[in-house]
Amino acid sequence: MRPPVSLAETLDSIPETWSPRIVGQVNDAHLKVARIEGEFVWHSHPDTDEAFDVVEGEMAIDLEDGPVTLRAGDLYVVPRGVEHRPRAERECRILLFERAGTPNTGDAGGARTAPERWA
Amino acid sequence: MRPPVSLAETLDSIPETWSPRIVGQVNDAHLKVARIEGEFVWHSHPDTDEAFDVVEGEMAIDLEDGPVTLRAGDLYVVPRGVEHRPRAERECRILLFERAGTPNTGDAGGARTAPERWA
Repeated sequence: MRPPVSLAETLDSIPETWSPRIVGQVNDAHLKVARIEGEFVWHSHPDTDEAFDVVEGEMAIDLEDGPVTLRAGDLYVVPRGVEHRPRAERECRILLFERAGTPNTGDAGGARTAPERWA
Repeated sequence: MRPPVSLAETLDSIPETWSPRIVGQVNDAHLKVARIEGEFVWHSHPDTDEAFDVVEGEMAIDLEDGPVTLRAGDLYVVPRGVEHRPRAERECRILLFERAGTPNTGDAGGARTAPERWA
């Protein structure tokens, strides 16, 4: 069994923003942490819901009907297939929960697609 | 889509300890929050891994080889089938990730089995 993981220490060790690290597996799902800042790309995940839990800071998720704002300790689930664009004015640290193997850019792909990496 | 959920406000609203509330669904998994204090029962979940993320406070999970201690911001996954006993000397607040429909007492059952309830 893997030892306990400190989310804060793991986040401190990630040099890049928008580059999630896997911190745990639950059945066929991964728990990941990421540092985000600025605007990401619009995308959706056709095969998985995606939960965002803000560990530190504040972020927004743009949706077709307008943005949702999330502060530290807030949880939000983007259902599968729903177009969304995460963004953060200042650095924000998040915990993600989604099906293992889900690329960060979903169906959009492109240069900002991060490799799957364990912490 | 469900609006964002404040984990702190949800936890404040739960009158009982050891009585998880569901705060989100990701595919076939539930995210739950719970207030815990004292010792729970030894049990295992034959059909699901279970992640513990400490939101506030400190807890231990007794395992056959000894306890694991978790502090705020720590994440730990108990694999399916592994006997464990959560406990906390003082109130601790946690976020859980596991397959939907998983009873809190696992294979042990008994009086401390909590109903499945959304926040």
